[in-house]
Amino acid sequence: MSTRVDTVAIVGLGLIGGSLARALREAGFCRRLLGCGHREGSLKRGIELGVIDEFTLDLEQAAAQADLLVLCAPTLVAAQQLHQLLCSGHAGADAPVITDAASVKGNLVRAARDAGGGVSPPNFVPGHPIAGSERSGVDASRADLYRNHRVILTPLPEGDAGALELVRAMWQCTGAEVVEMDVEQHDAVLAATSHLPHALAYALVDALAQSDASEDIFRFAAGGFRDFTRIASSDPVMWRDIAVANRDALLQAIDQFSVHLQRLREAVAAQDADTMHDTFSRAKLARDEFAAILAERGQQRH
Amino acid sequence: MSTRVDTVAIVGLGLIGGSLARALREAGFCRRLLGCGHREGSLKRGIELGVIDEFTLDLEQAAAQADLLVLCAPTLVAAQQLHQLLCSGHAGADAPVITDAASVKGNLVRAARDAGGGVSPPNFVPGHPIAGSERSGVDASRADLYRNHRVILTPLPEGDAGALELVRAMWQCTGAEVVEMDVEQHDAVLAATSHLPHALAYALVDALAQSDASEDIFRFAAGGFRDFTRIASSDPVMWRDIAVANRDALLQAIDQFSVHLQRLREAVAAQDADTMHDTFSRAKLARDEFAAILAERGQQRH
Repeated sequence: MSTRVDTVAIVGLGLIGGSLARALREAGFCRRLLGCGHREGSLKRGIELGVIDEFTLDLEQAAAQADLLVLCAPTLVAAQQLHQLLCSGHAGADAPVITDAASVKGNLVRAARDAGGGVSPPNFVPGHPIAGSERSGVDASRADLYRNHRVILTPLPEGDAGALELVRAMWQCTGAEVVEMDVEQHDAVLAATSHLPHALAYALVDALAQSDASEDIFRFAAGGFRDFTRIASSDPVMWRDIAVANRDALLQAIDQFSVHLQRLREAVAAQDADTMHDTFSRAKLARDEFAAILAERGQQRH
Repeated sequence: MSTRVDTVAIVGLGLIGGSLARALREAGFCRRLLGCGHREGSLKRGIELGVIDEFTLDLEQAAAQADLLVLCAPTLVAAQQLHQLLCSGHAGADAPVITDAASVKGNLVRAARDAGGGVSPPNFVPGHPIAGSERSGVDASRADLYRNHRVILTPLPEGDAGALELVRAMWQCTGAEVVEMDVEQHDAVLAATSHLPHALAYALVDALAQSDASEDIFRFAAGGFRDFTRIASSDPVMWRDIAVANRDALLQAIDQFSVHLQRLREAVAAQDADTMHDTFSRAKLARDEFAAILAERGQQRH
């Protein structure tokens, strides 16, 4: 591997893949950006916008030309693509380094180990940039999407150290802070901070929409409700796939939350003002500290 | 009653009361704005800022001087003040019109009916402006807080029609849209759109803060989590009081939500992709419609 990468293939040219391509181009990370996907329109648009240099509709063609291949498709699709690539010879020292940007890591690692007969091929490095937007598609992509955001890599014991370094270098040049974590820890943390809140917001809005008073409910809801339910406007297909992929950790998070909610319910029923006050105060303290962390990190709005 | 009101007393000069006073002054609704409360510092600050003209620390003195008295203290305090006023002669045709801005209406109506021997005195008109901010105190008050927001009045059958008209006129001149609703309907709608979301956000943040992985959880949480949990930074005392005051409607809302969450949990456990997709899609549709309503009403940010 020379100091400068020749070809990076971006598989799935939407917001995530497009923004990565833009950031890599801006940083001069590689000579050539190769787009790949099944929607020719998005890929052509990517060339028009200068996001990629060339494209192919064939995943294995992309792998054959790439030094580094990044799977940016939704969670379940990325796992299938990974399995396909690793089963068709793109595994090992001569294959491109393969990483991904999917929201769940356990199912990708299972796919890689399944393809490798129980051991993930050394050229696969699981990754997850913690960034996004309600907007989607290559037209919404921007070079600074990852700046000041975290990227979690969950390297496997059987992974190659050089592959890990290449993936780390790629994300660092987007302005992200790269950290490492266990696969299980990643999936538990993401279930708690992202997958559970989405499940709660979806369940709440669906419950209210089905209630007899739904018209009044939405008519009289205000700013707090808007913020609380914003994530219920997220893509249903993406979140269905995440819920499928991260089943066990999500169930555990839902159950843990339900215990706390029932405890609060008991306090409300008993008009136990002290317990309510303690719960709300602890939560406010934690939330205020979290807001301070985000503000420090340069992600505005508290 | 002349066409112009002489004295409006604002009891509790924080964000809500201060913003009302500013709006009334801007609209020229009355000749004199009289502040009342137990924190002399806030009242003196109110005079400094030009929010009120005079103040008294004595609730009954305020009522004796006012044509219209607005209870802007927190929910449980407002109910106590209302009871005190109605029990001490400030009830009936010669008494000032009394209204309030508390988040729950059932407990105020119970206090009024208790004071009146089962019948609320005719000069009480329950009200609730659906507006607020995470900021609090008279320094955060602004004349446009209620503009394009809803104010819900829940007039009682035993209430005086003139009193209702005066309260309606007061809120209209702040730029708010005034609507009427049953007391029970109000408390159920607010439980669903405001009190339940706060309970969920508080329960979630408290659950995560108490988890073993809490440090990682807050470290890797991102924008969606920030918006979802923003309301957990609200004032714990205010929300404890609301949960006490609106106990029954809040319990019903928690239980209704819990049924839906458990249904979603079953779908996750069974990896029932269709049910998850249907739930998320219905919720997204309802949330998108809600965002469109808010946008139309001029409350920006989706």
